[in-house]
Parts: sequence; C-alpha cells; structure tokens
Amino acid sequence: MQSFIPPDVLLLGPGPSPVPPNVLAALARPTIGHLDPRFVGMMDELKDLLRYAFETDNALTLPVSAPGSAGMETAFVNLVEPGDTVVVCRNGVFGGRMRENVVRAGANAVVVDDAFGTPVDPNKVEAALKANPGAKALAFVHAETSTGVESDAEELCRLAREYGALAIVDAVTSLGGIPVRVDAWGADAVYSGSQKCLSAPPGLSPVTFSERAVEVIKSRRTPVQSWFLDLGLVMGYWQGGAARAYHHTAPINMLYALHEALLGLKEEGLEAAFARHRANHERLRDGLAAIGLDLLVAENVRLPQLNAVRVPEGVDEAAVRRRLLQDFSIEIGAGLGELAGRIWRIGLMGAGSTPQNVDRVVGALGECLGRKVA
Amino acid sequence: MQSFIPPDVLLLGPGPSPVPPNVLAALARPTIGHLDPRFVGMMDELKDLLRYAFETDNALTLPVSAPGSAGMETAFVNLVEPGDTVVVCRNGVFGGRMRENVVRAGANAVVVDDAFGTPVDPNKVEAALKANPGAKALAFVHAETSTGVESDAEELCRLAREYGALAIVDAVTSLGGIPVRVDAWGADAVYSGSQKCLSAPPGLSPVTFSERAVEVIKSRRTPVQSWFLDLGLVMGYWQGGAARAYHHTAPINMLYALHEALLGLKEEGLEAAFARHRANHERLRDGLAAIGLDLLVAENVRLPQLNAVRVPEGVDEAAVRRRLLQDFSIEIGAGLGELAGRIWRIGLMGAGSTPQNVDRVVGALGECLGRKVA
Repeated sequence: MQSFIPPDVLLLGPGPSPVPPNVLAALARPTIGHLDPRFVGMMDELKDLLRYAFETDNALTLPVSAPGSAGMETAFVNLVEPGDTVVVCRNGVFGGRMRENVVRAGANAVVVDDAFGTPVDPNKVEAALKANPGAKALAFVHAETSTGVESDAEELCRLAREYGALAIVDAVTSLGGIPVRVDAWGADAVYSGSQKCLSAPPGLSPVTFSERAVEVIKSRRTPVQSWFLDLGLVMGYWQGGAARAYHHTAPINMLYALHEALLGLKEEGLEAAFARHRANHERLRDGLAAIGLDLLVAENVRLPQLNAVRVPEGVDEAAVRRRLLQDFSIEIGAGLGELAGRIWRIGLMGAGSTPQNVDRVVGALGECLGRKVA
Repeated sequence: MQSFIPPDVLLLGPGPSPVPPNVLAALARPTIGHLDPRFVGMMDELKDLLRYAFETDNALTLPVSAPGSAGMETAFVNLVEPGDTVVVCRNGVFGGRMRENVVRAGANAVVVDDAFGTPVDPNKVEAALKANPGAKALAFVHAETSTGVESDAEELCRLAREYGALAIVDAVTSLGGIPVRVDAWGADAVYSGSQKCLSAPPGLSPVTFSERAVEVIKSRRTPVQSWFLDLGLVMGYWQGGAARAYHHTAPINMLYALHEALLGLKEEGLEAAFARHRANHERLRDGLAAIGLDLLVAENVRLPQLNAVRVPEGVDEAAVRRRLLQDFSIEIGAGLGELAGRIWRIGLMGAGSTPQNVDRVVGALGECLGRKVA
C-alpha cells in the first residue's frame, strides 16, 4: 500500500465542488490546540464570516463538526421533542431525509409532497399549517440538491411565522450561490455544508439559530437525544468566552479551510458571487441547448448552481458519466431517488462556477453524445 | 480579516497531537468525489489499515465522519435501545460522558465508580454484572484521557462475555499508543479518534464492531435515534460494493490524511510504536523526577502516552501553562473535572512521542518552575 495520490478531477457534480488552492493550503497549515487563544480568535472570526454568508446577526452561528447531514440532525434534535408535530415539505430526496429526522426525534411528521423537479407549493403548506394548529415547526429544503429546484424560502418562512411555527431551512446547496437572507426571512434554524458553494472541503456544517429558536432550546422539557449535537453543550464551547467549556476536539484543520474559503466569499462579495453563479448557469443553459440538451426544471425556479439535465431517450446515462470521468476527468452527478436514470446533475458551485468550466463540460458532453455545438 | 496563519506550537497536551508534514501534505491533495472509483479504492485500503491498527478482522470497521465524541455516540445509539441496562465504568471524565450517552439513548445506566486516577476495578464490575442479569453491555474507557490511567481491557471484556453483555470500549487515547487487541479481547464495539496516537488531524473517529454487535444492530426492535450515525445506513455506504448507497458526503480530505497517517503506523509496526511510546514515557518520568515532579498514577497502570503530572503545592498551574505556550511554544493540558488545578497532562502521542520532545518539555517546565535538572 502506498500514499494515495488522487487524480485531478474537475468536480461538476452535486458536491463536493472544486476546492481552490489557497483553501487547500490553509487546510495543511500546522495543527494547533483547540483551546489555544489564537485558535479561539480564529473561531470568533469564523462565526462573523458565517454571519456574513447567512446575512444574519444571530449569536448562535457556528460550524457543526461534521458534514451537512449532521447539521440537519442538529436542527431537528435540538428544536423538536417527542410528541411535537412538524410540517415537512418533500419535493426531493432531502425533504425525505428531513422527515426521517423528525420521526427519529419522536415527533409526528406531516408531509407536504410536491413532485420531484417542482418547488414546494406554499398553498399546500398553508393548508397543512392550518390543519395542524400548534405545529412546532415547518421544515423545507431551500435548494433541492437532488432536483435543482429553488423553493420560495421567504414566503415559506413568512407562513411559518404566521402560524407560530419555527422555520427550519436546508440551505446546504444554496448558501453562497443564491441569497440566503436568514434575518430578512425570519428563518429560525438554517444549516448548510462546507463543500458546495462555499468551496471548502466536505466535513463541516455551518448552522445558525434565531433568538426564538434559542429560547425554544432553552425551554425544552426533555434532554436533546444526541450528546454530540446538543447545542446547549456546543454553545458552551463556541460561545463560552472566559468560561469556554470543553465539549469535543474541534476539527482544527478543516476550520482553517472554512475560514479561508469564507474570506474568499467575503472578498468577492455575496451579490457578486450570486451574479457569477447566475451568469455561468445561463452560459451552461445556452451551451446545453446548442447540443440539444434541456433542463428538467422550469426557468423561474431553477437553481443556477445545480442543473438537472434531461438524459435524451436511448442514451445510457451511466456510460456517459463514466466516459466523462475517464476520458475528460470531469465528474458530473447522476439522478437520485425517482430521478435516477432520468437526469444528470451538473453543479456549478463556488469556485467551480466559471465560464471555462462551463465550456469544458459542454464540449465534453457534446463529444460523448456525438453532438457538436451548432 | 486575513488568512489565519497558525503559530508553530509543539502539541504535548491531551490532543490534538502533532501532525507530521506528510500527513498535512496528504490533507491538502485535490478533493475528488466521494463516489469516484479511485476514492472508493482508497476507502477499502483505509478499512484494511484500520483493521491493522485495531488488530481485528471485523468487517464493520470504518472511520465515522466526525470526532471521537461522535464515535462514542455511534457505539451507544446503535447497540443500546430504550429500556436496556448498561453497566458503565466511570473513573474519569469520559466514563461520565459514556453514562450521558446511555441515558440519552433511553437506557438505564448502572454506574461503577472508581476514583479519578485509578483504573476500573474488575471486582466491582463483576458485582454489577451479577446484580444486573441481562445487562445489554458493559462500557469502559481503556485509556482515560482525563487521568492518564489504563484499565485492564482484556479482563473487562472477558467479564462482559462471561455475563453475556456486549463490551463497548473507548480507545480514543489508546489506539496506536498501547495494544488495542480487539479480536483477542473479544471486544464488541471500539471507537477511537484520529488526533491522538494516530497522528492525523482531529475530526474522524475510527470504529470497529464485532459480528455479535452487528447481529444486535440487525435485530433491533426500534430505529436508531440518529440518522447521521445509523450504522445500518453508514454500512450501505462504506461496505456497499456494487450497491453502494449514498448516505452523506464523506470528509474526503480528512480521509486522505487518516490513510497517510495509518500507512505510517503500519510502516513503523504496532509493536515498535508501542515500544517507542513506552521508552519516551520512561524518559519523561525520569526527566520530571530530576526536577522534582512526580506522576499521579501508579506505575503499573500508567499510560505512556498521557502523563498526569502532580502540580506542586503553591504553584499557579495555569500561569505555568500560559508561559509554556507563550515563551516556549509548547502546549500541555490542564486537569479536567475533579482533577482541575491538581494536575498537568503531558501527552506523548503518535508523532509527538520523541526523545527530543521529552527533553524540550522537561527543560521548559524546569525553567518555568525555577528548577534546573539535577
């Protein structure tokens, strides 16, 4: 057995996305102690950078020491108690995962279904909230990674507040790619991942909780079922000040990388990053059209960072992905769940969203399909 | 705000330990996809390397995508169900954390207490197992990071089997530093951390489960309360073969680093690594004695990799640690729990266990205390 030298692959799938050299360099800086005052200073900066990305002033804003799935679980196990009712929107794979989390927390999940490839329907959500007075929370995925659809987070958060429910928002694929306006929307618990539009390696999950959510956590009747994800304990570590309490050993080097990646986002500016994602999406859409490929999702609800491309009749989609990887060193994603075999997923996320990458993937796809650009 | 450039600190606390340059270099290699066949090949090697470190043939051996605390939780939430009884040994902070995990899994914890600084007493454990027939598991910490004590894992695992209980073993600080003979002991669930004697950065938790444990997981009456840590799902991802199912996005770069660190351990050889930890511990013991410092723990149960040093009367222990960090760039640890203020913890773990590091910390401590080596 030898050292593992990974191949150089252009990551244009649903994540991870390409990690820029300066972020990889930050990752490799010397490990220091998680209680070292210099590390603690970096943590404070990191929280501020996350507040910038989330457009929030929430005090409880931090990176959970595990991937986005753990960020999702952090939201549910801290806010939901046995016997609660949660309205869960399911218009893709990750809505289904939210439902799993609700059930495993001992709560009752009222599922609002919409077809894969369409957004969450606010009318159905309002009907569900009306039919379930006292629902503890409304949970939905802002940017469905499995379909490439954006749902109207602002409207859904507004409905949650109107009906007295907490708004739990999955922003794994949206943060850094399209606006995630936590405070303006009045969202209560929002989680994301380090490896999509933030351009850090996978392994961390930024989360932010409103004051209202913190009050709900503080007034729980039952202990949080997870020790590792218990925000009452995690807060003591991340917000401890002089009384900082040891909870777990933070993933030091991964936090260096997230800090560096977020600095890059701040330097570019959120609005500029959103515009870049939008422009490269349009370039991709036009390039795909030129080789006769079209997108699954209606134009007004398409995510610029995650493009669901219809697989043409008679094409072996897995063979195309294999050839892209082997002959062109480009990774794109397959469909998930009921969209398996029917779509490819092309991610243009974070540092991966460039015109050069768009041209490279369109050219390679055209070659694989024997369709030259018109 | 600027890029974070960490200081160069010699990490001789209770973890993280120093990460060698080749492991940092592996960490910074280009991120690839978690479903890329080359990555999957690396995962298979990683499982084999972990089996080497754990001295096991267990099929279910993998790194959990989060720090050691999550490895602990993985063991408890998968093996324990509401209503079960678990005998938990508590002779330090981490035994107390095990108890928390048992309670949060809805089970009944029977605690066997021993004084901080002493090992788990097998006689008390046997009495507890006798008094609680049908106990589902016996849980103990092999190497207590909070005190520097080794407990007799072989004897405790033997007792568990004799009384029909699963043996759950915390090997966070032991793996790679002293023998962790999973198969020879008949241990059922063992978890560790990447950042102690394995010399990778913090953030991953290697775990291994016996066939017996896998049977228990497969025959659960209730779902695992954690979605993220549900081994039924994690196994589908790590052991999936052709049917590999997506679970979560693996922390790709951290896994490169763990692979590289374990290659180093295998190249040195387990027995050579144990002998090195032992020899440097003895050098430290002698060096400390020469400046009038002695160790908390009795000689026959001392961990070579984690040394609890008594703080002399009248010495401000925090001031000494601050000076070590500021003037000598050496980090050592404070006491935890009831040992706070009474001990320092000097870790000689993994790549940190060298004669040069021993001499450096002894010399610096001597200067701080105004005690020159005799």
